[in-house]
Amino acid sequence: MLHEQILTSVIDDESVPWIPFAPHAANVLLKYFKLDPVRGEMIVMMKMPAGIRMPKHHHSGTVIAYTLEGRWKYLEHDWVAGPGSIVYETAASSHTPQAHPGHGDVVVLTIVTGDLIFLDENDKVLAIENWKTSLARYLAYCKAASITPRDLTAFS
Amino acid sequence: MLHEQILTSVIDDESVPWIPFAPHAANVLLKYFKLDPVRGEMIVMMKMPAGIRMPKHHHSGTVIAYTLEGRWKYLEHDWVAGPGSIVYETAASSHTPQAHPGHGDVVVLTIVTGDLIFLDENDKVLAIENWKTSLARYLAYCKAASITPRDLTAFS
Amino acid sequence: MLHEQILTSVIDDESVPWIPFAPHAANVLLKYFKLDPVRGEMIVMMKMPAGIRMPKHHHSGTVIAYTLEGRWKYLEHDWVAGPGSIVYETAASSHTPQAHPGHGDVVVLTIVTGDLIFLDENDKVLAIENWKTSLARYLAYCKAASITPRDLTAFS
Amino acid sequence: MLHEQILTSVIDDESVPWIPFAPHAANVLLKYFKLDPVRGEMIVMMKMPAGIRMPKHHHSGTVIAYTLEGRWKYLEHDWVAGPGSIVYETAASSHTPQAHPGHGDVVVLTIVTGDLIFLDENDKVLAIENWKTSLARYLAYCKAASITPRDLTAFS
Repeated sequence: MLHEQILTSVIDDESVPWIPFAPHAANVLLKYFKLDPVRGEMIVMMKMPAGIRMPKHHHSGTVIAYTLEGRWKYLEHDWVAGPGSIVYETAASSHTPQAHPGHGDVVVLTIVTGDLIFLDENDKVLAIENWKTSLARYLAYCKAASITPRDLTAFS
Repeated sequence: MLHEQILTSVIDDESVPWIPFAPHAANVLLKYFKLDPVRGEMIVMMKMPAGIRMPKHHHSGTVIAYTLEGRWKYLEHDWVAGPGSIVYETAASSHTPQAHPGHGDVVVLTIVTGDLIFLDENDKVLAIENWKTSLARYLAYCKAASITPRDLTAFS
Repeated sequence: MLHEQILTSVIDDESVPWIPFAPHAANVLLKYFKLDPVRGEMIVMMKMPAGIRMPKHHHSGTVIAYTLEGRWKYLEHDWVAGPGSIVYETAASSHTPQAHPGHGDVVVLTIVTGDLIFLDENDKVLAIENWKTSLARYLAYCKAASITPRDLTAFS
Repeated sequence: MLHEQILTSVIDDESVPWIPFAPHAANVLLKYFKLDPVRGEMIVMMKMPAGIRMPKHHHSGTVIAYTLEGRWKYLEHDWVAGPGSIVYETAASSHTPQAHPGHGDVVVLTIVTGDLIFLDENDKVLAIENWKTSLARYLAYCKAASITPRDLTAFS
């Protein structure tokens, strides 16, 4: 039975690699910790160079973002998120991330549920990201780098 | 504080109207019970005429579907869902609903989290549905029908 | 990988049995559809005889209750839930279910996340119910009745 | 309508205080970022002195734990969690936290859904913690320290 595979466990920092966020933004790096194939929850560390602006995107579900380093904002909001802050993003919200120049790389731990939909300037869908596209990116990276992949979709 | 507005409560069947699923499928009727503005969870009763095929769609999150009447399937799966069954749909899955002819209207209670993305035959995005588009449809219907809307986004 | 086991699927009404809610209330019957071993979500149909009062309980998470037959209330609230209604119960709420006499058995579909804690009249913990205790009850029932159990913890 | 109060926003590190985890473990400090009154999700930073052992507890739902500093383990598991690791705890699991001596204080960001139930050596319930008890602790601390509390239950 499935529950016999389910166990509280740890994923060590060094057991998962930094991966370029190709083809959307190759200078943004992602470290995938967990990709839930039932609910679509993703636990992902993200690193953005200072000063970068990422494309506008829409989230189908919630995002919790804990900033470790650097400062960033969404163009659509006045607040700025710095180290130690929590950003709580609600379902069906859209925004354009901007990493502040002059504060070093931005490193953010994110817990994302569902799809992230990249939009062009007319709000047309450019691309959809979720646990499936993330898993494909991770497996392709591991194959190219001759790394044995972890099962990021498991809970064990 | 927000928690002072939050209470266990009931939404009666007769307190929420059947609404055409315009413009996607005006002969499909929806009855919205709850539209969660934080997580994007929607509790919706759906009524489809026997024999109808709906457009293919992708779900960002999970769907729980409890069938009350009729029989339906997804073209992509072999199983058929009849009265009293539970269908559990996992995140980032896509499928094409088909209501079986000869078994009467299909009536299904659904608990949907996140976006429902309608796709054309080339998997291009036709439309995105979520708590926001559902609320807009509900409010427009209430206005046109001179019904005082409930706050479906509240928990009280 | 775990995701290769995950698939949208149906659980038919007749594929899961009614089980007495022993030892808490043997005249209450439960039909388990899904017991999620990761999040603790349970999809359970419940049948209560008209007029019965169940022990007060506390929920750690949300409950969605869709009433199919009968009428019931919580002693702590004024509203009464009848057929076709949705009750949305918020996290860390407590209440005492009362099935109304004179309206037939109460049949309710519930989606429960987390623990249900039964309390005595001094709010002391009598028993804790969750996906693990539910699975144990289901497996014991199947064994005693010589039924081959489904894997209610799977998504496939 | 409730949705008009809901907005993506930031909670700054310095806007929420460290609070002793009284009466359970006054030398453990908690920093509450978010207490969701609908789902019972809590976002809490925790600081434990090196070498401390906390009481065994049961979780009704999931916990995601991201370790910032120090090293810790559960007595029930072989693995040790260090800086940069993610621990994913599944619903209805129980464990006894032990902060390792000789690695400095343990600082962990946790996202906890539902109840945390403290148990004695016979698995009897000692205390139940959740968004309500956390909010009461936060408000009591703010009052005693003459701090104006934030509405940690809001999404705005």
